[in-house]
Amino acid sequence: MSKARLEAFSDGIIAVAITLLALDLTVPVPGHGALLPQLGDHWPQFAAYAVSFFTIGIIWVNHHARVSQIAMVDRTLLFINLVLLLFVVLIPFATATMATYLTSGSEDSHIAMAVYAVVLEGMALSFSAMFEWSLHEGRTHVVVPIDQRRAQRLRTSIGALVYAGVFGVAFISAPLSLALAGVSAIYYIFAPVPRGTAGPEPEELESGSE
Amino acid sequence: MSKARLEAFSDGIIAVAITLLALDLTVPVPGHGALLPQLGDHWPQFAAYAVSFFTIGIIWVNHHARVSQIAMVDRTLLFINLVLLLFVVLIPFATATMATYLTSGSEDSHIAMAVYAVVLEGMALSFSAMFEWSLHEGRTHVVVPIDQRRAQRLRTSIGALVYAGVFGVAFISAPLSLALAGVSAIYYIFAPVPRGTAGPEPEELESGSE
Amino acid sequence: MSKARLEAFSDGIIAVAITLLALDLTVPVPGHGALLPQLGDHWPQFAAYAVSFFTIGIIWVNHHARVSQIAMVDRTLLFINLVLLLFVVLIPFATATMATYLTSGSEDSHIAMAVYAVVLEGMALSFSAMFEWSLHEGRTHVVVPIDQRRAQRLRTSIGALVYAGVFGVAFISAPLSLALAGVSAIYYIFAPVPRGTAGPEPEELESGSE
Amino acid sequence: MSKARLEAFSDGIIAVAITLLALDLTVPVPGHGALLPQLGDHWPQFAAYAVSFFTIGIIWVNHHARVSQIAMVDRTLLFINLVLLLFVVLIPFATATMATYLTSGSEDSHIAMAVYAVVLEGMALSFSAMFEWSLHEGRTHVVVPIDQRRAQRLRTSIGALVYAGVFGVAFISAPLSLALAGVSAIYYIFAPVPRGTAGPEPEELESGSE
Repeated sequence: MSKARLEAFSDGIIAVAITLLALDLTVPVPGHGALLPQLGDHWPQFAAYAVSFFTIGIIWVNHHARVSQIAMVDRTLLFINLVLLLFVVLIPFATATMATYLTSGSEDSHIAMAVYAVVLEGMALSFSAMFEWSLHEGRTHVVVPIDQRRAQRLRTSIGALVYAGVFGVAFISAPLSLALAGVSAIYYIFAPVPRGTAGPEPEELESGSE
Repeated sequence: MSKARLEAFSDGIIAVAITLLALDLTVPVPGHGALLPQLGDHWPQFAAYAVSFFTIGIIWVNHHARVSQIAMVDRTLLFINLVLLLFVVLIPFATATMATYLTSGSEDSHIAMAVYAVVLEGMALSFSAMFEWSLHEGRTHVVVPIDQRRAQRLRTSIGALVYAGVFGVAFISAPLSLALAGVSAIYYIFAPVPRGTAGPEPEELESGSE
Repeated sequence: MSKARLEAFSDGIIAVAITLLALDLTVPVPGHGALLPQLGDHWPQFAAYAVSFFTIGIIWVNHHARVSQIAMVDRTLLFINLVLLLFVVLIPFATATMATYLTSGSEDSHIAMAVYAVVLEGMALSFSAMFEWSLHEGRTHVVVPIDQRRAQRLRTSIGALVYAGVFGVAFISAPLSLALAGVSAIYYIFAPVPRGTAGPEPEELESGSE
Repeated sequence: MSKARLEAFSDGIIAVAITLLALDLTVPVPGHGALLPQLGDHWPQFAAYAVSFFTIGIIWVNHHARVSQIAMVDRTLLFINLVLLLFVVLIPFATATMATYLTSGSEDSHIAMAVYAVVLEGMALSFSAMFEWSLHEGRTHVVVPIDQRRAQRLRTSIGALVYAGVFGVAFISAPLSLALAGVSAIYYIFAPVPRGTAGPEPEELESGSE
């Protein structure tokens, strides 16, 4: 039951955070020119909204897959989960900051995009911490054999590696960095996952029974 | 279980989105004349709020009916569902933009209403994509016979057709277009649905057992 | 299942609406005098927040009690429930408007309080509509005998009567009207309810089993 | 069922309140200097966000533990729970006020931090009221022996004592007071809890079965 409530609470926070993304979209104020070009000028807001929406969507899928394999909830896991959610809830703020400066053409565009990447990195590292926590005996339904841990740890670290890349590219070009984050999110939704790993499992997702 | 969590996550997002509609209603600032005429001048906000509220309400009913017939969840469905929710979460922004320009009397009123229609169209097309996805064997509890697919595809496309109409009328008169969207939402709540189709089914809705 | 999802959706909307009330509380901007007197000047916001919080809390309790007795969900009930939620979601806006003008000392204070009462009245009348809907055979688990309908209809109308009173008093004194709404909400939480009626039932509330 | 809905409703409100914390984070407006130093100047917002996030996280854990031991729901408990949630929903406002004045260096920094402490104190006292309510026979699954009540009452009062300390330190130094609140939240997550008390129980948290 505790686990069910952990899932429900996390789901609630993730659902609210993904919806608050839309509050970052500003309605053009009348009297500042025609509406359509104004909306066009806001393209960074819309692009940032879409990328963050799919990113949080992926977090939800991954959170679901990870927690479904956990067999017990202790205070360390609660803490790791809270830190993970703390970064998820920061995403709307980081998205708004990034979108505001994305096309500023100055050093600030790099900084704003880097801040965005740092928030996503914090989220990814929390997932890695959750994986490390789950390696102890009795904490998951299926124990990961020691000789497979290295491979799984690598898989779990992909998110952290991707966002490190997003961080690095931010200092070359903020829009390119955003595109990289967006492509990664879409790719991750469709990425094939080998059976029997700690990652999201297709056979589990395909079971529609309750 | 996966399907139950998909429903719960979607319900959460839809519930937050419908509630955020009210954030678009602006409180008149004291010192700008009497309150009652000011509230009267805000009628586009209230009309837009009501139309969007019932529209999202219908989306929730339809989402429920559609997902209840699905037998498995795969990554393509997760993606389609995320795209659907992306448009749902855009509705408060589109509503605020539309309400702001509804009575501007300029070209912008047409553009703002058209933007609103595009968001609803994106949502309706996502529903159509979900229907096409569900045609493959084993994805729904009850398979749709091939000779009935054409009729069902038409039914599923009604929303997309209505919002195409709303889009078209937007360029004639924005308030008329809003009225059309409102009438459609109310109509859809009460529309009789033939039994045995993929649409929302009365007999299912009437079963109160859990 | 349909009923369970109706409850979950309604609960979600009510939970978000009650939380959005806090967005109406404005943080004093530095440079406009000492903080404590500024917060003191905001007392209408805090009073309005508390009254609306308990009012929505009561709505949640009553909604729960009403729906728990319903045996089937049809499209008319879905529509009535959406109208009820439409008014619930308007409460944060009505609260903010009322709090802004509560102490303006002008005609606007009466208007703002009356608008607040109208929103609560709309919510109460939706509850009455839900009661009338439930009188048809087969729509509730326990049928209300015809000779008890009059008494129950009266009970169900108490909310509508109270808010009519709040509306009337609004034109005498807005703060007095707010106090009446607050006292009613607190009273209603503790009001004894005769067993076997359509109202919230103590024996049901007291059962802690899931 | 009533208890399950009480939990779900409380969870929903707590999840929304914790997410609204992020709305207090303001995006620096372009044209006011470089982005990075501006974000650095906003450190009180980030520190306040983190402390309040973990504080609400702890409230959720404690609420879960407390309610799990309750055997019945009556109107008094509903009222106490609403008062508790009223204070939880105030936390984003109190956090924003506190963060705005934290480094103002004036008397207002003490006042703002004290307001924050008062809100947390109100929440902690609501928990104590819930404990006192639960002492009557039949209200919890496991009755607390009379000779253990004193010890348990003390344990339950720790939160109220801590926030009284936070209140007192607020008048010495607001940042120090915030640090105390933060350390307390983190400590409470990991605090060992003696078995068999009314507090959150490790063995219960460790059971991952649904």
